[in-house]
Amino acid sequence: MQSPNVTFSKEYLVVAQNASGRNLNVPIYKFVSSVPGPKVYIQSSIHGAEVQGNTVLLHILKALQSANLRGEVTLVPNCNPVGSNLKSGEYTLGRFDPVNGQNWNRAYHYNEDLIAEFSEKINPENSIEEIKYEYRQKLTASIEKRLENEWGLGLAECLNLKLQLMALHADIVLDLHNGPVSTRHIYVPEYAKESSKYFNIPHVILIPNKFSGALDEATFCPWWSLSDSLHERFPGVNWDFGIEAFTVEMGSQEVIDIDAGKVDADGILCYLSYKECFVTPLEHPKIMTRQAVYLKDYKIMYSRFGGMVEYVAKPGQYIKKGEVMARVLNIDELEGEDAVSNVNAPCDLIPILHFPSASVLGGTQIYKCFTNYFKI
Amino acid sequence: MQSPNVTFSKEYLVVAQNASGRNLNVPIYKFVSSVPGPKVYIQSSIHGAEVQGNTVLLHILKALQSANLRGEVTLVPNCNPVGSNLKSGEYTLGRFDPVNGQNWNRAYHYNEDLIAEFSEKINPENSIEEIKYEYRQKLTASIEKRLENEWGLGLAECLNLKLQLMALHADIVLDLHNGPVSTRHIYVPEYAKESSKYFNIPHVILIPNKFSGALDEATFCPWWSLSDSLHERFPGVNWDFGIEAFTVEMGSQEVIDIDAGKVDADGILCYLSYKECFVTPLEHPKIMTRQAVYLKDYKIMYSRFGGMVEYVAKPGQYIKKGEVMARVLNIDELEGEDAVSNVNAPCDLIPILHFPSASVLGGTQIYKCFTNYFKI
Amino acid sequence: MQSPNVTFSKEYLVVAQNASGRNLNVPIYKFVSSVPGPKVYIQSSIHGAEVQGNTVLLHILKALQSANLRGEVTLVPNCNPVGSNLKSGEYTLGRFDPVNGQNWNRAYHYNEDLIAEFSEKINPENSIEEIKYEYRQKLTASIEKRLENEWGLGLAECLNLKLQLMALHADIVLDLHNGPVSTRHIYVPEYAKESSKYFNIPHVILIPNKFSGALDEATFCPWWSLSDSLHERFPGVNWDFGIEAFTVEMGSQEVIDIDAGKVDADGILCYLSYKECFVTPLEHPKIMTRQAVYLKDYKIMYSRFGGMVEYVAKPGQYIKKGEVMARVLNIDELEGEDAVSNVNAPCDLIPILHFPSASVLGGTQIYKCFTNYFKI
Amino acid sequence: MQSPNVTFSKEYLVVAQNASGRNLNVPIYKFVSSVPGPKVYIQSSIHGAEVQGNTVLLHILKALQSANLRGEVTLVPNCNPVGSNLKSGEYTLGRFDPVNGQNWNRAYHYNEDLIAEFSEKINPENSIEEIKYEYRQKLTASIEKRLENEWGLGLAECLNLKLQLMALHADIVLDLHNGPVSTRHIYVPEYAKESSKYFNIPHVILIPNKFSGALDEATFCPWWSLSDSLHERFPGVNWDFGIEAFTVEMGSQEVIDIDAGKVDADGILCYLSYKECFVTPLEHPKIMTRQAVYLKDYKIMYSRFGGMVEYVAKPGQYIKKGEVMARVLNIDELEGEDAVSNVNAPCDLIPILHFPSASVLGGTQIYKCFTNYFKI
Repeated sequence: MQSPNVTFSKEYLVVAQNASGRNLNVPIYKFVSSVPGPKVYIQSSIHGAEVQGNTVLLHILKALQSANLRGEVTLVPNCNPVGSNLKSGEYTLGRFDPVNGQNWNRAYHYNEDLIAEFSEKINPENSIEEIKYEYRQKLTASIEKRLENEWGLGLAECLNLKLQLMALHADIVLDLHNGPVSTRHIYVPEYAKESSKYFNIPHVILIPNKFSGALDEATFCPWWSLSDSLHERFPGVNWDFGIEAFTVEMGSQEVIDIDAGKVDADGILCYLSYKECFVTPLEHPKIMTRQAVYLKDYKIMYSRFGGMVEYVAKPGQYIKKGEVMARVLNIDELEGEDAVSNVNAPCDLIPILHFPSASVLGGTQIYKCFTNYFKI
Repeated sequence: MQSPNVTFSKEYLVVAQNASGRNLNVPIYKFVSSVPGPKVYIQSSIHGAEVQGNTVLLHILKALQSANLRGEVTLVPNCNPVGSNLKSGEYTLGRFDPVNGQNWNRAYHYNEDLIAEFSEKINPENSIEEIKYEYRQKLTASIEKRLENEWGLGLAECLNLKLQLMALHADIVLDLHNGPVSTRHIYVPEYAKESSKYFNIPHVILIPNKFSGALDEATFCPWWSLSDSLHERFPGVNWDFGIEAFTVEMGSQEVIDIDAGKVDADGILCYLSYKECFVTPLEHPKIMTRQAVYLKDYKIMYSRFGGMVEYVAKPGQYIKKGEVMARVLNIDELEGEDAVSNVNAPCDLIPILHFPSASVLGGTQIYKCFTNYFKI
Repeated sequence: MQSPNVTFSKEYLVVAQNASGRNLNVPIYKFVSSVPGPKVYIQSSIHGAEVQGNTVLLHILKALQSANLRGEVTLVPNCNPVGSNLKSGEYTLGRFDPVNGQNWNRAYHYNEDLIAEFSEKINPENSIEEIKYEYRQKLTASIEKRLENEWGLGLAECLNLKLQLMALHADIVLDLHNGPVSTRHIYVPEYAKESSKYFNIPHVILIPNKFSGALDEATFCPWWSLSDSLHERFPGVNWDFGIEAFTVEMGSQEVIDIDAGKVDADGILCYLSYKECFVTPLEHPKIMTRQAVYLKDYKIMYSRFGGMVEYVAKPGQYIKKGEVMARVLNIDELEGEDAVSNVNAPCDLIPILHFPSASVLGGTQIYKCFTNYFKI
Repeated sequence: MQSPNVTFSKEYLVVAQNASGRNLNVPIYKFVSSVPGPKVYIQSSIHGAEVQGNTVLLHILKALQSANLRGEVTLVPNCNPVGSNLKSGEYTLGRFDPVNGQNWNRAYHYNEDLIAEFSEKINPENSIEEIKYEYRQKLTASIEKRLENEWGLGLAECLNLKLQLMALHADIVLDLHNGPVSTRHIYVPEYAKESSKYFNIPHVILIPNKFSGALDEATFCPWWSLSDSLHERFPGVNWDFGIEAFTVEMGSQEVIDIDAGKVDADGILCYLSYKECFVTPLEHPKIMTRQAVYLKDYKIMYSRFGGMVEYVAKPGQYIKKGEVMARVLNIDELEGEDAVSNVNAPCDLIPILHFPSASVLGGTQIYKCFTNYFKI
């Protein structure tokens, strides 16, 4: 039963228009508590084939219906109505705009100049809350200006900016993704390493303060940079704005598994409990081994050949240098010893995900791997 | 070690030309024995994403390298170099010509008039072998005439006809396919029901004498029709031409599993042993339950909704009428009881395959099912 | 100004549901006159990239807003919201279902048994109008039964049947298409040859009473067959049901040209005037040369090569046997005489359309041509 | 007839491997003169649908067969065998890797650190030729190192780097492209403005020293940066390395026009004549108006709506602020004044290219336009 402190609402936001001239919108589920607390924003399926996050949102929503929430939570499932609906053959062509190849998760807004400018003009007497308020005003204005550009805006940009306008007001932002064939893993900004212990996710990638277009970076980079800049100018002060953002990879794409979604939701609720989003914690972290890498050690293995591949090394396995990771069938040499050739691990590693199709051209990302990993 | 009776050869056949003007060819592996026996033709991957048959051919070829073969065996792996190389996103768009939607397995040749005409002119004194020889001459001429059409020929037709010219000379034709997410199953002409017990495949579809464009039908329909026609005209005679053709579905598409390919290969070698392709049988059939249906009872279940689907019923399971087969997530109703709705079985059934993606539009083939099935 | 006899309405019909679970609908514009007259149904863009028909409907609608209509007219622009919205690169992948290759214009309903059965039971004393009414009841029931199938229905079938349920009640059905790069041309059932003189369309294809899945055939075949059957049984009577259906190809796909749409609309209004859809005719036919062929003489020219093609023969040109139709660039032989090779006309012909891309694989439909054409 | 000073050769370079395991190669046509002179590299069709450059190379090659060349010329037509062969519907999906959306013209190599490092260590006593030689050694090594990466390399990167290894040794690099529906236009580094007068191309975009991944930038940025750095350190010296690189847009994609290719080839031969590639000039520049813009004034106009678009403003036209550029059909409002809405020019401009399909989603690049243009 809904706590009396909490109000629930559902709205729709238009994020695009299709070639029939019809609006495409996303549902926005919102829980607002009268008890103050962090603001949380969670979206899923910005990549159209990565659908499992939607089941995670279902379970989070169900938990929030009876939780004693502090602050507010905004949930946006299936946040990319263009990418979700693009079939090509039986699968969903959901990673990029089919017209121009633009990755749906690489067109968020980041304005380096604004950060520098804001930092310089800051009044160090102001409270953290006042600074946050003002900064968000500036960031909002910066995005709105782009949305109003008289020459218009690209589809992915427009979609990204409209979502970012919501995420911008949150202290905690989670962007739910899936890998191709994949373990559960999470991208965590280096400064929020501690938080990664609360998600029940065994594989953690620690990322630096570098913007490459994704929502998590677009969320934390401005604050991280501001914080760095202020620390330099006013060294004694604790410039912690309390903003965290994560890309959470909830297993494999093209799959809906409602029960597995419950487990993932519990992990997120555990993290939110730790961030004091609830009057009483909903979940506690599991005891488990969590392996981490720095982003530079999260390696992509590309195929050096074209061919048909058996993925021998499974996501999450510990693989030693030299062990067989994949076997490649050579249809032109079936009669001899070259019929099958091996791809071996170039060092000790944990494969985190592999390509979802056996048919690969040369230069295909066949694996992404943890190397130089460590317990966290 | 290769038996001294057997000679091995490898050749390449040009089957298409790409937009760069380059020839696309397929490898043809051939084993010919000096001991007379049936002629066998096996191809794989006419649908480009259905790659597992290539590993099956690898193991068959390895077995043939030391077997005491009778007759001859022709193996054509990866027989569709156009379909195999068409990526769209991470998957292979391999079921149809991307230009016009033509299914790669529906453009084989069938000439009803030729059958009627040949049957009428037959000399009933001729031996089965003489009739086979003459009939094959006519069928070959009929295909060659199409290939020489002064207006040219469609890509799928051309590919199909070039393969069919080889298959035409075989007594036994196997076309290796995969389902989307699928059990092992096999299409068997009704008259060859007995043969289905030798393949180690648990699900059997018995098909009538009706040509719909596929290689198995293109192979057996002309002989079945001829046989029927001759039985009518010369009732006392045994008009058995000894031709059998099968479409064998070796599990799920987009997957290479070399060890599993060995098991599938053993099943085929068992069938070939039963057909006396070897001086001594290579394999014996497994004891297992084989369920069969008539084609009319092999039902397609289409989605009545668009949405995100969890496939609860797994391929091969026995499902009772009314049991949940799939659960559908409704992103617009996450807060209420309509968040998840069920798709129930309309009757007792065995799901044989399901759609490989969770994202479906209304009218998608979500399952194909055995109904009214029986042990064989 | 709208005639006082005529009422206008606009409604929306749900024809599909996308993977986000959202309904996809088409607009239905309807003009109903209190003066009796023929019922007309016109749709456009069943193939998603063939958009020009939508501008034709715009101009027809504007004309109807002030015309003194008899009977009624139903206009359904952009009748395929799935196909219209499927981009792949910059173009629209609109000819077939991207999941399975099913042509969007080949899944209309035709029930040969129903025709035979109905014809046998007919009461020859009944008036043409009574027979039409009863027959439409049967045809409607037959379609509705398929729509209610407990196993569901394919996407293209479902879309086609829902549109056909409307078209079924019309006496005149026009399905507006475009060719790739194309002249204006029209498919006309042989019995309605006379009507082809009213459309201002220079190229006419006369088609037999054979159902291949398209809307025009689905509309006229049942009546043509019924009429044939009744003529046989009751030879003296004039069994003319007054049903005509046409596929009209309004130039090239991927193009909107609003002014050209006016010219096309005028041609259709001229035909409708001739069919007495207006109290006073709106338009009169242009004096022009109209060339016709029988369907068997409408030839597809397939490329025998893969390569890059210059289309020398333009749609509508008179080409003599042996003249150059296309030139093919061979990138591997630029230095010699084989750098460019020619494709010559195999007989006198008029190219009606050609492939819209210079890059072709072997077996591509590069031209469709009138041969053995004649003035009409 | 070939000049006795010049030797011609043709080779093939493997640039990729397809999923059948077959090598994909490109032809390399090379003319080498015993008379010293500039080295020229020209490639075409890195974007697979942009095929017209191949006909331009045909005509250049034919001219070189009888020209008295100085230096050497390398021609690589159809340099992307993956992109050229990817059909999706009737068109070629040639702009990006279909697996991951990577633009085929954005993965060339650029190593900023290498430039700085090399510049610092330079011996200012060395001749320009010595410096060029050494620098090219370093650049080559840097690319080769990436090609040898033990984790492999992405498909587009690999293709780009293999081509770049050839282009690197040229003084003049031309990358032949096409726009969607487009005028002839050319991208010129600002420092080479003078050269733009020799190409017979009416529209010139002047680009700054900024690397965004394309071949022209990858070619000239390292030299421009080196030159800038050396000018700063050794101000009196003329640090001109004589390297120029251009992206030349030869009209519209998906089109082969062999005669038009002759005109384009003549323009390029004129430029090469001016660069003293021939003992006697082959061509002289045409007298024509050439309009130029700085890259920042080359504006993309995005659609603010989804719908069906008529492109009223044609490539190359002079359009005044407020004039209609495009008309949009609204299928849901055909009966009223909103049936057609206009897109107006936000300022005086010249449209250079427009989208090739009438069907656009919101956020589509419908035009690219010159603003603030000036005669050159």
